[in-house]
Amino acid sequence: MENFVYFNPTEIYFGRGQEEKIGEIIKKHGIKKILFLYGRSSIKKIGLYDKVVKSLQEANIEFIEHGGVKPNPILSHTLEGVRKAKEFGAEAILGVGGGSVVDEAKAIALGVIVGEDELWSYFRHEKEIKEALPVFDILTLAATGTEMNGNAVITHDETKEKLYISSPLLCPKASILNPELTFTVPKEYQAYAAVDVIAHVIELYFSSDYCPKIQARFIEGLIKTVMETTEAILENPKDYQARAEFMWASTLALNGLAQIGFKGGGFHNHLLAHAIGGLYDLPHGACLSIVIPAWMKWWCAKNPSPFERFAKEVFGLSKAEEGIEALKNWFKKIGSPTSFKEAGLDEKAVEETAKITVQTAPVWGLDKYYNFETTKEILMKALS
Amino acid sequence: MENFVYFNPTEIYFGRGQEEKIGEIIKKHGIKKILFLYGRSSIKKIGLYDKVVKSLQEANIEFIEHGGVKPNPILSHTLEGVRKAKEFGAEAILGVGGGSVVDEAKAIALGVIVGEDELWSYFRHEKEIKEALPVFDILTLAATGTEMNGNAVITHDETKEKLYISSPLLCPKASILNPELTFTVPKEYQAYAAVDVIAHVIELYFSSDYCPKIQARFIEGLIKTVMETTEAILENPKDYQARAEFMWASTLALNGLAQIGFKGGGFHNHLLAHAIGGLYDLPHGACLSIVIPAWMKWWCAKNPSPFERFAKEVFGLSKAEEGIEALKNWFKKIGSPTSFKEAGLDEKAVEETAKITVQTAPVWGLDKYYNFETTKEILMKALS
Repeated sequence: MENFVYFNPTEIYFGRGQEEKIGEIIKKHGIKKILFLYGRSSIKKIGLYDKVVKSLQEANIEFIEHGGVKPNPILSHTLEGVRKAKEFGAEAILGVGGGSVVDEAKAIALGVIVGEDELWSYFRHEKEIKEALPVFDILTLAATGTEMNGNAVITHDETKEKLYISSPLLCPKASILNPELTFTVPKEYQAYAAVDVIAHVIELYFSSDYCPKIQARFIEGLIKTVMETTEAILENPKDYQARAEFMWASTLALNGLAQIGFKGGGFHNHLLAHAIGGLYDLPHGACLSIVIPAWMKWWCAKNPSPFERFAKEVFGLSKAEEGIEALKNWFKKIGSPTSFKEAGLDEKAVEETAKITVQTAPVWGLDKYYNFETTKEILMKALS
Repeated sequence: MENFVYFNPTEIYFGRGQEEKIGEIIKKHGIKKILFLYGRSSIKKIGLYDKVVKSLQEANIEFIEHGGVKPNPILSHTLEGVRKAKEFGAEAILGVGGGSVVDEAKAIALGVIVGEDELWSYFRHEKEIKEALPVFDILTLAATGTEMNGNAVITHDETKEKLYISSPLLCPKASILNPELTFTVPKEYQAYAAVDVIAHVIELYFSSDYCPKIQARFIEGLIKTVMETTEAILENPKDYQARAEFMWASTLALNGLAQIGFKGGGFHNHLLAHAIGGLYDLPHGACLSIVIPAWMKWWCAKNPSPFERFAKEVFGLSKAEEGIEALKNWFKKIGSPTSFKEAGLDEKAVEETAKITVQTAPVWGLDKYYNFETTKEILMKALS
């Protein structure tokens, strides 16, 4: 294993009814005024909005609302949140929704400190994060792992760059994970979520020089849980046990535990998928299921042993290529696209994606791998 | 999965050379005066003592020493530490050594706040922990997981009770885990350590009403890692990768992650093993390897399915009983005793152990299972 530092201070409240504690939890941190951030109308439909308001009122937490966060959260809406939070004097940000809402909550939490004009330079990694308001969240879509890490991804409205910030200071103080709140997640979003969770754990597993077995076993256990529970959820969206195990798997997949002890790897598939997502506003998981099999075919020649291990441990197959094919077929089975064409895109999209990939690769520390020609060649494997 | 709250604020510095940062890490927390706690002479033999002193001096951390912690740390030595820390005005406790040293560091950290006269009542769970000094540690024996949890076990010199305290307030602020510092751990202690780590993860796995698959997979992965790396370490004590994976497995085994999402289980084997340990000053792992197979045979009838799963997933065997036998044989293979007789004890020890077990079972919430007769019956299976 390689040297690492691990620190994760997020308090997790997991299970039925935990959302009713939100006011009390925020109060425990000595906070009295918050910005309450959410997406579209879904939290109102499932009655969560009313529960949150009641819990905040009972704990005497004053709040101002900022709704309308988009699935790929954008900078302009974030900056609007920063202005509202500053005007109101918010001491913390509460995000209630999926990964997009929590990500935007983190971005606003930083923006209130550094100011609207400076915020994007932190996404360009030009400045170091030194302070942020505390973030709290109630999760309604299990996928990104943002509820227990210090990462946030925002898309620039104009340049279409989809970039991230990362700092332990952005880890939520507390996250509420009630699997029942994910019962209404539509089937296609459950599929995209499954792809995203798998992507989080396979990035370093495949791309690093060496994968410690303790990490490989943890990762393979998470992947098997994700596959099994996703199938159960697609069969019966109200299967509590499946929703719960999926939800916890998605948190563990990107809370830092699966990503330590490696050397030399990178988030290759995320780089490629973010390029597509920034350009075409496709769900993140759909972008990933398009690029992953193509990237795997290309990278497998460079580092065959983890691909062989993956085929054996996850699918009981003997050859690396069979494992790649099995994963691609599983993505198809759950209804996530595995080619540009399935997502309604053509060769022009491949070119555009390659262009953005090359532009953003330095931010991901992966520019030595991706020039325009190579990238296009990889992505062409995903055309149809 | 059952509802749970998870919170673990310990910062982990893992890998080669991390111990040189100890002064700087303590300083970062605004601390200037500490009690430096250690065991016998081993940290001096391996040069660690000098490194710690140098790092503390460089960071201008003043310290007073308290050496001589015993493998089963005792109350009287703890109270002596409390007095020294108070007289010196220590603001934190630094434990450098194995699990015993870190446990005693936590007990002293609590004792400084609550006073010598009150400390044992916290081990009897008569009072709630509300404050403790910060604890830091450098680990030299990977086994108990104390470096990333809020638990500490101390034995009362006179009554021989071996009891624990547990609170998030006792989680170390930072723990340094350098696998190289475990190179000199003797083979028998490596074996006991392996038993202890396995025990931590199988307690709830076997004894709960229901084991979520995500947890089962995590636990099985840890057990396989422990078995594989222990064999490698016994073969070559300086196998860095094996020491590293074993060390991290031992931390993950009792940092709370493996123990969430269950209902109805308890730490049965630890209750029994602590009774032996308190009476006969045997290493904790040796006490566990004596009781585990006997307890498994007895409990298997009550809850067969996890025992079947264990046999299959860990050993590739089809029957529950075969899994129990395989684990017992593995304990024998690595040189940890699997009967009272192997540890030089007889039927009188069985009786004494049963007596203490019954006395302490209420503290563990397990008194409904263990009356004297039943307990003696279970332990007699471990006599020879």
